Amino acid sequence: MQTFLNQLERVLGGSGLLTGEQVRGRASSWLDSSPNQALAIMRPESTEELSAALKVCNQHKVSVVAMGGLTGLVNGAIASTSEVGLSLERMNKIVELDPIQKTAVVEAGVALQVLHEAASVHDCHFAVDLGARGSATIGGMISTNAGGTEVLRFGMMREQVLGLEVVLADGRVMSSMRPLLKNNTGYDLKQLFIGAEGTLGIVTKAMVRLRPRPLTHCCALLAVESFEEVLQLLAFLQQRAGLSLGTFEVMWQSFYDHVLANNKAHKAPFAQSPAFTVIVECTGTNIEADQDSFEAMLGEAFEQGLCIDAVLASTLDQQGAIWAIRDDIETLMSALPNGIMFDVSLPIKHIDSYVEQLKQTLVGRWDEAQVITFGHVGDGNIHLAIALGKHLPAARDALEQYVYTPLEGLSGSISAEHGIGLDKKRYLPLNRSSEEIALMKQIKAVLDPNNILNPGKIF
Amino acid sequence: MQTFLNQLERVLGGSGLLTGEQVRGRASSWLDSSPNQALAIMRPESTEELSAALKVCNQHKVSVVAMGGLTGLVNGAIASTSEVGLSLERMNKIVELDPIQKTAVVEAGVALQVLHEAASVHDCHFAVDLGARGSATIGGMISTNAGGTEVLRFGMMREQVLGLEVVLADGRVMSSMRPLLKNNTGYDLKQLFIGAEGTLGIVTKAMVRLRPRPLTHCCALLAVESFEEVLQLLAFLQQRAGLSLGTFEVMWQSFYDHVLANNKAHKAPFAQSPAFTVIVECTGTNIEADQDSFEAMLGEAFEQGLCIDAVLASTLDQQGAIWAIRDDIETLMSALPNGIMFDVSLPIKHIDSYVEQLKQTLVGRWDEAQVITFGHVGDGNIHLAIALGKHLPAARDALEQYVYTPLEGLSGSISAEHGIGLDKKRYLPLNRSSEEIALMKQIKAVLDPNNILNPGKIF
Ligand SMILES: Cc1cc2nc3c(=O)[nH]c(=O)nc-3n(C[C@H](O)[C@H](O)[C@H](O)COP(=O)(O)OP(=O)(O)OC[C@H]3O[C@@H](n4cnc5c(N)ncnc54)[C@H](O)[C@@H]3O)c2cc1C
Ligand SMILES: Cc1cc2nc3c(=O)[nH]c(=O)nc-3n(C[C@H](O)[C@H](O)[C@H](O)COP(=O)(O)OP(=O)(O)OC[C@H]3O[C@@H](n4cnc5c(N)ncnc54)[C@H](O)[C@@H]3O)c2cc1C
Repeated sequence: MQTFLNQLERVLGGSGLLTGEQVRGRASSWLDSSPNQALAIMRPESTEELSAALKVCNQHKVSVVAMGGLTGLVNGAIASTSEVGLSLERMNKIVELDPIQKTAVVEAGVALQVLHEAASVHDCHFAVDLGARGSATIGGMISTNAGGTEVLRFGMMREQVLGLEVVLADGRVMSSMRPLLKNNTGYDLKQLFIGAEGTLGIVTKAMVRLRPRPLTHCCALLAVESFEEVLQLLAFLQQRAGLSLGTFEVMWQSFYDHVLANNKAHKAPFAQSPAFTVIVECTGTNIEADQDSFEAMLGEAFEQGLCIDAVLASTLDQQGAIWAIRDDIETLMSALPNGIMFDVSLPIKHIDSYVEQLKQTLVGRWDEAQVITFGHVGDGNIHLAIALGKHLPAARDALEQYVYTPLEGLSGSISAEHGIGLDKKRYLPLNRSSEEIALMKQIKAVLDPNNILNPGKIF
Repeated sequence: MQTFLNQLERVLGGSGLLTGEQVRGRASSWLDSSPNQALAIMRPESTEELSAALKVCNQHKVSVVAMGGLTGLVNGAIASTSEVGLSLERMNKIVELDPIQKTAVVEAGVALQVLHEAASVHDCHFAVDLGARGSATIGGMISTNAGGTEVLRFGMMREQVLGLEVVLADGRVMSSMRPLLKNNTGYDLKQLFIGAEGTLGIVTKAMVRLRPRPLTHCCALLAVESFEEVLQLLAFLQQRAGLSLGTFEVMWQSFYDHVLANNKAHKAPFAQSPAFTVIVECTGTNIEADQDSFEAMLGEAFEQGLCIDAVLASTLDQQGAIWAIRDDIETLMSALPNGIMFDVSLPIKHIDSYVEQLKQTLVGRWDEAQVITFGHVGDGNIHLAIALGKHLPAARDALEQYVYTPLEGLSGSISAEHGIGLDKKRYLPLNRSSEEIALMKQIKAVLDPNNILNPGKIF
């Protein structure tokens, strides 16, 4: 093992390899603050260094676990004591930003927020956003195919990636970094690495797509009485606002009450907590007219009985206050002892009955059960935070069965955005056929014959 | 061979297998009306029948060439006399259309136009459109990752596909048909088959995404004096119209003059032919205001000197007349003896100098050279129709070298939309590295070990 580490150090330089206390001083992940257990952590400064380092690992058959911002929520970046971690924190430059072509070349270690800010300076917009924006990296987001709050209009991370540079397990560099929206030249290999959770190759650089920055941004919080009306409201807004509808996020009463009760920093937007609270955002380019049209549209929704109350957020501060409630996952989880967060998607028409049924089942079995629901909804994705009082973590398996099993019959997914990692590995066969899983393994064997890249994750 | 055909007929039934004159009575492709040379053409009625038929082909190691609408432009669906064709013309049902979830399940044999019409009945819109809409099939469009005129806003065919059913070479059926925008459960295998030109599996069914149907549709034709102004106009429209900008198509003077001169059915929109003629389309949802905003925006472009003339197309007939010019590929090619059509993409800022340079080079070498240019431009994609007088077809190779070689240095692509097929196979190494091509072949070997699916196409 010492020869191996010496070889790595020769390739990466002194500050390029962390060992012992330097590793232990880092957390395992956003969910788990216990000391990182990796044998060492590699910190290459360039693609060439990484390539040389991976060759060493591959020769020694030592496993490599890529670690981005460690904000992933399925234990995908957890390394054991015999595995080497890999951080791209020193590869964190925005190499190029072209406001005419609307593209950026970014190294994998760049944090999402940094890219947002750089794009905005050039009147451009990078169209993925999520609560962990300060830490989540472009490499990690590509490797989990991250979603977030703009998927309805712009798609997942996959839709933003025009080109990738990837280092394979044996150190070979595969690069296709053309800034093109259209490029049909043989198999689109980059698709393999997007969402592969670090099991097929290491993403070192990406050519991503930017959009024109919208000039107006209208935001409101609506109180809605039933899920049926939530669905009607969504259909109404899609028809009326068309592509300017950017966000349609829903907080169930359970979420709204829980977060407001446990974090007094929030100001309650409504006197009484609504059955459903919806964040609606539209963006556009008409500075004179957009706010008026937005308000007229909401007025019509109100007249049609699709909502019973509304709070307009005209200033950035007011918008910030609304999102602070929706994004307060810290309060949500810290005030829910041993709570577990689920991330599922299903056809929107089934969402309400799925949630109600699940709640009844859980309360029937464990009377302390608490189900707190919120999510993107407009794209069929909800998050469930579930606590079972003293029964967790012991009852985790049983709980997972209750959450995941009904999804199959509803054409749903056990993981909308977060991926599989270690946490959902045993449930993968609920969603993917044995033919599919066999093919995944064959592809893994082609790209990583020694199985050194994040082995044991996904399947 | 007769045993083989008998086995196929047993599986497919009498009308399920065409041979001899029935095959010869069909054309080879849209580009080549000579009799189809395939040994036979299979016409399965169901996925199960196709699965059984492919098993027979795989056992006998007979190659299978999928044939959709035969509108592909790279000789991807050409079969030799020892190969069996496969048509999904009897699998042409829209199985389901869900206007709330905004999804449709379609069999691969459905023609694009049929899907457009079905979606429109439910106030939905399928967001890929191209001139061959009457014949091109969903299966063929998925297999070529077709683009067309709405890519700027909605992406290629890839972005519309939520789920696929595919039959592999050995008859195994792989299906993942969830109607979900977000579904991160292991590798996204369907991506492999999109754009694979029938070499990795046969697409039998797809779950595609629909959009809300826009309520307004504004269209205009603008006359622009220089390419520099075309670029400024595009940037101006993107900033001012934002996501309502749906189309930005450009016809060079060469295209405009050629089509108008050779098809008297068209009415010239401008008294003098402009250096560049741009089709601009915006869609929206505000029936009262959109046409006015559109006209105001164009007025501003005019004042800023970004265009020198404009024709508004307010009625469907007027819009049809504009598109009839742009879509008149028949006139374009039939009046250009031995002309060859190219489909390339490159960063938009390089388009003009690339075209000018190419023209000079070609005219320098062959003084009869004619270069006719048009294309989507907003997404970096142009088509070049090139004739060399008597020198074609003999000089085809030399011409191709001139067209393709400079693209590499400009980060361009030798095939924006049409794929590789047979026609561009020798140029693939200009765009893809040897590592990439080696990996493509490894993936092909995993999925089709006997190499029976469209062998010899792409690489
Ligand atoms: C508060 C909060 C809110 C969130 N909201 C959302 C949301 O709305 N939508 C959503 O989709 N997700 C959300 N997430 C989770 C999301 O997965 C992560 O935010 C992000 O995508 C992971 O990026 P990361 O850099 O932290 O990756 P990590 O957590 O470090 O790693 C994630 C996976 O990718 C691999 N990986 C990392 N870097 C690379 C690389 N360069 N090459 C190859 N593999 C690599 C790792 O091995 C691991 O398997 C949220 C997380 C938090 C904490
Ligand atoms: C007038 C005209 C305009 C066009 N405009 C555009 C445009 O704007 N943008 C654009 O992208 N393209 C355009 N095209 C070309 C485009 O590729 C085709 O229109 C379309 O995508 C091919 O569909 P098809 O059903 O005709 O496929 P085919 O031509 O029959 O086949 C194309 C390829 O796909 C394979 N294939 C077919 N069906 C299947 C299946 N079910 N499973 C697996 N493989 C299959 C074939 O083997 C072949 O390799 C145009 C063509 C014409 C004639």
